[in-house]
Amino acid sequence: MVNVHEKQFLLDCGEGTQIALRHGKIRMMRIDHIAISHLHGDHYLGLFGLLSTFSLLGRTRALNLYGPPELEGLILSHEKVGESVRGYPLHFKATQTESAEILFEDGSVSLESFPVRHRIPTTGFLLREKPRELGVKRDWIARLELTLTEILSLKRGEDVQRPDGTVVLCDQACHVPPPPRSYAFAADTRYWEKVAEWVQGVNLLYHEATFDAAMKDRATKTFHSTATQAARIAAKAEVGQLVIGHVSARYENADALLEEAQLVFPNTVAASDGLILEVSR
Amino acid sequence: MVNVHEKQFLLDCGEGTQIALRHGKIRMMRIDHIAISHLHGDHYLGLFGLLSTFSLLGRTRALNLYGPPELEGLILSHEKVGESVRGYPLHFKATQTESAEILFEDGSVSLESFPVRHRIPTTGFLLREKPRELGVKRDWIARLELTLTEILSLKRGEDVQRPDGTVVLCDQACHVPPPPRSYAFAADTRYWEKVAEWVQGVNLLYHEATFDAAMKDRATKTFHSTATQAARIAAKAEVGQLVIGHVSARYENADALLEEAQLVFPNTVAASDGLILEVSR
Repeated sequence: MVNVHEKQFLLDCGEGTQIALRHGKIRMMRIDHIAISHLHGDHYLGLFGLLSTFSLLGRTRALNLYGPPELEGLILSHEKVGESVRGYPLHFKATQTESAEILFEDGSVSLESFPVRHRIPTTGFLLREKPRELGVKRDWIARLELTLTEILSLKRGEDVQRPDGTVVLCDQACHVPPPPRSYAFAADTRYWEKVAEWVQGVNLLYHEATFDAAMKDRATKTFHSTATQAARIAAKAEVGQLVIGHVSARYENADALLEEAQLVFPNTVAASDGLILEVSR
Repeated sequence: MVNVHEKQFLLDCGEGTQIALRHGKIRMMRIDHIAISHLHGDHYLGLFGLLSTFSLLGRTRALNLYGPPELEGLILSHEKVGESVRGYPLHFKATQTESAEILFEDGSVSLESFPVRHRIPTTGFLLREKPRELGVKRDWIARLELTLTEILSLKRGEDVQRPDGTVVLCDQACHVPPPPRSYAFAADTRYWEKVAEWVQGVNLLYHEATFDAAMKDRATKTFHSTATQAARIAAKAEVGQLVIGHVSARYENADALLEEAQLVFPNTVAASDGLILEVSR
């Protein structure tokens, strides 16, 4: 679940997601966007129950759903056999794995998909804050009696020449807004250097790390990554922080994988149930 | 989950069933029969993940699945989109809602379905132990030097006339085996007296009790039952014990519904997560 200024994006929805959302005290009805990376059960089987819960809770607001083309038919099949009536519109947009693509954007955030390499067609997702407008300092507005036109020019980053010939420098008259932040979710994927291009420079990268380095061959064969490989992508992409997850059940915990990743990319943490990360600039 | 002499029957499989099975320390791979009452999400959405887990755990033994005809297509759809290969045969038998029917039987147990009345086609399920053979007392075999033919006759419940003219009475020579037990799961259903006929005399009856008596109209409209109605079916069917469940989330707990049912049918308990009931004779 990614919260961007109280807009909530759910990325993947495995079985039991509703329970996790309740544990996390997430306001389910505030979820307006769900993006599904691929159609393996652990990534989408919780979706049908969640969509049905939305109806039970009386949702009428439209829901935006992004995922592989076959997902829409599956939803319709489940609704058909249950003879259930959805109480809200579902806007489905099929993802593709040819190229990166903007799935949604508004004034403050954009959601992109990008291809990864898994056994079946799979995409990662990338959420970016939009750059915020410059804010003109209040005392400058008052002191110089700036006109609306002058203020709007400054907000666009332009310096302003006044009727009396003086110049108001944008750099001086404006607050610098905090740089926009970004989060990438690289889903299930084998090591693929192209992923580092798609997620270049994000503040926080989730990359799966199913296996340890000794199991590299098995990772490649099953289209998964090792902790070292995840860290290598993070390093190549020069991300701010890496969070690894999707750890194989063969490991009692993520400790060894975390150590392995940190050798290559020190600012790495391991995902765990209920973990909350603040995306820092 | 019904355990009949270590044969395990899973009746319905809502989302999160795998977690419940793990909490209950149930040996998942020992489940050879799964029966789905109807295709509302809370009764079947955990099935796809469970079937896939069986493959991950290396299952090769066949699984018997019973449920509405559309269920098989849904399973195939999910397997297709995930390009997943099942490691074991799945024997699917479609249920129907015209009449009661034996879905499976072997030497020790039978599984029947019976129609109930819900918003969509739905069946309940009934598990019956087979009557056990009579056991001829060991000391009688030794003392009278009974022949194999004589023993088999006694086991069939017949008295035996011996070559010397004496008669060995079955009642005296045999242990009386315990009477077979039975459990009925009436799934989701509105009050329907026919259900009492299908489950007549079972030792333990599960009957849903979604609402309290004051909400009878809503129960009828939504094809659910009140606690009083569940208890009335139990009384009519002269069952040994009643367990009520599927309590609406509007109630904080099942206490009031339990009291209500007990007024009509005193030997009632309320289902709860992890509850284990021994079916008594």
